[in-house]
Amino acid sequence: MTATDRLSRQLAFSLELDRLKTILRQTLLADGSRRENDAEHSWHVAMMAVLLAEYAPGGADPLRASRMLLFHDVVEIDAGDTFIHDDKGNADKAEREMRAAERLYGLLPDDQAEEFKSLWLEYEERTTPTARFADALDRLQPIMNNVATEGGTWRPHGVTADKVLKLVKRIRDGAPALGDYAETLVEDAVRRGYLLPAALPEERPTGYPS
Amino acid sequence: MTATDRLSRQLAFSLELDRLKTILRQTLLADGSRRENDAEHSWHVAMMAVLLAEYAPGGADPLRASRMLLFHDVVEIDAGDTFIHDDKGNADKAEREMRAAERLYGLLPDDQAEEFKSLWLEYEERTTPTARFADALDRLQPIMNNVATEGGTWRPHGVTADKVLKLVKRIRDGAPALGDYAETLVEDAVRRGYLLPAALPEERPTGYPS
Repeated sequence: MTATDRLSRQLAFSLELDRLKTILRQTLLADGSRRENDAEHSWHVAMMAVLLAEYAPGGADPLRASRMLLFHDVVEIDAGDTFIHDDKGNADKAEREMRAAERLYGLLPDDQAEEFKSLWLEYEERTTPTARFADALDRLQPIMNNVATEGGTWRPHGVTADKVLKLVKRIRDGAPALGDYAETLVEDAVRRGYLLPAALPEERPTGYPS
Repeated sequence: MTATDRLSRQLAFSLELDRLKTILRQTLLADGSRRENDAEHSWHVAMMAVLLAEYAPGGADPLRASRMLLFHDVVEIDAGDTFIHDDKGNADKAEREMRAAERLYGLLPDDQAEEFKSLWLEYEERTTPTARFADALDRLQPIMNNVATEGGTWRPHGVTADKVLKLVKRIRDGAPALGDYAETLVEDAVRRGYLLPAALPEERPTGYPS
């Protein structure tokens, strides 16, 4: 590959990235005016990784987490955004995103395709402290925006506190102090009526032991 | 300041950042569908700093440039976006942005206010190789989107090639290989009619030496 071919591939990928600005998430902007897109969300959480670096646990590299967050949603250019509380959509998410990663990162020169696909996989697998710290910020930011919009995404989707508290557990896994803070946010949201306190027990077939 | 106060200030700043998603630039998305906002633009150029790191000249730190680009437009939350070809708007831009920096970074604990204001000032002053590399990417991305949209911002504003070539010089100052590439983009844009070749000579008052 000539130097010009290499640069052309890098710039083709750079231009393709523009499409992430058109992929909408469920989360609303903090002013409630519209849904957030993946590109601006990625910027927001990458900033939070820099600003909140001191809460990263031992062994995590917050600046690497910031880079990881820049890249973490790129696959959604092809695979689309999957709402975290959409169980059906999440069933084939991994497969759709892997196909997307092959095509998108395949636009880059091989060494970079490998490097950035690995960074994304590290994020997805959440087995390193850096990935868990990145994941914590990716969970915290929508909770903050849901509180700012008085339950913006929670209300229309009937999301209940027990579901959000599962995400708080993931925040605590990646950044304990931020998990404590997120828990107070959720408790306060329930008190203010932005979030339903808990799921109603599911109806059970007759004779099912209670 | 207690640990809780410190975290509260950091999260208040994080939430304030959300407003950057509502500040519109002149540049269109590559698909021409709408104007780009500052948050998604910042994400795009921070990604390019990572992807194009190998073109940074000696003495530049591309990963620091990427962080610098995450922060570079935060002042526009208060100061608004100033179109690069708007001479009048650029006259008081520095003053407006300095006031914005004082208020916005002042939301953070003092040590971080200092750190991130400095990072922004380094970008603004363009005296370090890192800042010039960051600036090069900030100039290159809108040129790429203007080409993708067949002159999206150039045509309605009557921008001419000589003005864009001044920006290409800045790209070359920060990343020589990317400057060469940008020049071919501009030449090609003139050939295709996306960009006017040059400004007409200005009318001069009678008797003005020619």
